[in-house]
Amino acid sequence: MKSVTEHLSFCTKQRREFVNITERIQTLVVRSGIREGLCLVNSMHITSSVFINDEEPGLKRDFQQWLDRLVPEDPSLYYHSRTGEDNGAAHLRRTIMGREVVIGVTGGQLDLGPWEQIFYGEFDGQRPKRVLVKIIGA
Amino acid sequence: MKSVTEHLSFCTKQRREFVNITERIQTLVVRSGIREGLCLVNSMHITSSVFINDEEPGLKRDFQQWLDRLVPEDPSLYYHSRTGEDNGAAHLRRTIMGREVVIGVTGGQLDLGPWEQIFYGEFDGQRPKRVLVKIIGA
Amino acid sequence: MKSVTEHLSFCTKQRREFVNITERIQTLVVRSGIREGLCLVNSMHITSSVFINDEEPGLKRDFQQWLDRLVPEDPSLYYHSRTGEDNGAAHLRRTIMGREVVIGVTGGQLDLGPWEQIFYGEFDGQRPKRVLVKIIGA
Repeated sequence: MKSVTEHLSFCTKQRREFVNITERIQTLVVRSGIREGLCLVNSMHITSSVFINDEEPGLKRDFQQWLDRLVPEDPSLYYHSRTGEDNGAAHLRRTIMGREVVIGVTGGQLDLGPWEQIFYGEFDGQRPKRVLVKIIGA
Repeated sequence: MKSVTEHLSFCTKQRREFVNITERIQTLVVRSGIREGLCLVNSMHITSSVFINDEEPGLKRDFQQWLDRLVPEDPSLYYHSRTGEDNGAAHLRRTIMGREVVIGVTGGQLDLGPWEQIFYGEFDGQRPKRVLVKIIGA
Repeated sequence: MKSVTEHLSFCTKQRREFVNITERIQTLVVRSGIREGLCLVNSMHITSSVFINDEEPGLKRDFQQWLDRLVPEDPSLYYHSRTGEDNGAAHLRRTIMGREVVIGVTGGQLDLGPWEQIFYGEFDGQRPKRVLVKIIGA
């Protein structure tokens, strides 16, 4: 069994941002030389997310608008704010969007469907964050 | 390390449908000959889901009713509709229900709890869709 | 390839409870002797969850308050109650919080970010439940 451990680094300009990381993950898979296996991609932070959906600007706005409705930004709504933090909403939003994805590796490539794109979802950015990429297989 | 890659195909009669795929996945695991490992089951589409919950008709109605409340169907609510698509709600619903499950393989069987059942959750059906099943182990 | 299968048992005092299991999972990883691989941690029940977030009491109250709003407790709201069960809300809450996490194993340790803590999330407790821990790697 072979394994490869890599990290991606982010420091988004906006507090909230969706960054398409499909090509970066695909490059790491090809470079790993692993032909058959699994690829774990997870945020190492608890106010950001890794998820798979569509590369379509309108849909990205829909996600943000929907998260605003399900998890209002206003820090006064959250007990978490008593710690001095103002990112309670970010913790809940990332829960809906998901911490991680696990993707098949087949024939040395990411085994994605035709419209599947991998995103890093930042909900409390403008500071350094990391994503773990762990590929295991043979 | 051994690995097996399989696909399930769906073309649901209804636009929204939950299909129990537990037996089909179990059959693939047994046929793989893998005794100990992990089994990834993921939708290859971004408007459908793979999730684990209960095989109970009332609960399946509860899921649909709840998704209607959290993510209204009306296409006029979504920026995504400007592309000509009418499935904005399906993209968000699948996000709540989840893209994938990872299940342990123990003693050559799916290592599921007593009531765990695996479902394909379709939110924009009546056309061909696929699920990836990737089993790795020894 | 090596693999280890372990179970954690729970019988929470409260119906709803978040239990930090990070140290227990870390101990199992170290004991496994696996240096590089993946660690699956999943609830074996469909009314409880395994998720990663922050060990902060205020945030844990925020999660509960938010789940109350998104998924009201009242059993009369759910078709599932017609079976005699009163835990319809628990099935939906666990869906939002997630069934499982997959964590990298690197250098013989859980490869977690600085604030990542693993929780068992119980939504219908006061009875025996189990979590599966499956570690594979080399």
